[in-house]
Amino acid sequence: MTSIKPSQIAPRYLEQLGHKGGAFLIGKGPDGTCNAMTIGWGSIGYAWNEDTLTVLVRQTRFTKPLIDASGVFTVSVPLDQDLKAALSLCGTKSGRDMDKFAAAGLTLHPGQSVDCPIIEQCALHFECQVVLTQEMEPGRLAQDHERYYADHDYHTMYTGKITACYLLD
Amino acid sequence: MTSIKPSQIAPRYLEQLGHKGGAFLIGKGPDGTCNAMTIGWGSIGYAWNEDTLTVLVRQTRFTKPLIDASGVFTVSVPLDQDLKAALSLCGTKSGRDMDKFAAAGLTLHPGQSVDCPIIEQCALHFECQVVLTQEMEPGRLAQDHERYYADHDYHTMYTGKITACYLLD
Repeated sequence: MTSIKPSQIAPRYLEQLGHKGGAFLIGKGPDGTCNAMTIGWGSIGYAWNEDTLTVLVRQTRFTKPLIDASGVFTVSVPLDQDLKAALSLCGTKSGRDMDKFAAAGLTLHPGQSVDCPIIEQCALHFECQVVLTQEMEPGRLAQDHERYYADHDYHTMYTGKITACYLLD
Repeated sequence: MTSIKPSQIAPRYLEQLGHKGGAFLIGKGPDGTCNAMTIGWGSIGYAWNEDTLTVLVRQTRFTKPLIDASGVFTVSVPLDQDLKAALSLCGTKSGRDMDKFAAAGLTLHPGQSVDCPIIEQCALHFECQVVLTQEMEPGRLAQDHERYYADHDYHTMYTGKITACYLLD
């Protein structure tokens, strides 16, 4: 396990998000239920004197109430690992219907700073404590609004302070 | 002028924001009024299939109505340039009271993709078109709320799609 500065790994994270299949966003509910969903959008930054990670979660997602209840999340990021099939499964199936980790052959490992697991098969991990929860207001996206929100399933934006950022060797 | 991928320059941007004095956020109003303010918080990301930059602007700032009216902004970032005095001035004085560019010895140069200038003395530039404007809701910051918002001067978060990102040689 090698700690790394979030800013230094930002290029790999942003490339993976936007152009290489995305990353896994993981939540854990109070009853121990865990779920992962695939994210392709998000940001990395610095605010309130903390390194931050912002993820977008649609209201209907099974992961949303898990994050709302716990106030924490993790993001596990494949770098050179070929996890396209698992990313595809976690982006198209719901945790309401199956254990996605088992179905995708993904192994959980406890987080080191938050009570939420990471996915062992990935190289890069962010652990986050939610500091700001913002629901997107209807009609606010200035372009392509209908393309992304025709069904009114808006995103909630969770900004977490990064409590740990590391590479699994 | 050398175009660069936003993800590739993210480490330099985030380091400058968080730990090296910040960057200049520039707005231009419909009457041609330009102003710059210093930002130390923000993020860089990928959303709605665009490279994005998010900046935080408090409601009372003179730059806010300029961005609201034009729907564009630029961020000029010192990398190895020593602009600490100019950053300090633009972070503590208001454009309502002075021409901050003249006072700080900063030279404007037209943006290449938006009708908003950049600051020539900086090496790195982002030009952005606002796609999402979100006012922070009172009480939403989960920690240190009183520290940052005791006066209720909340931030508006402007997320722009990056229409140009380049280094000035």
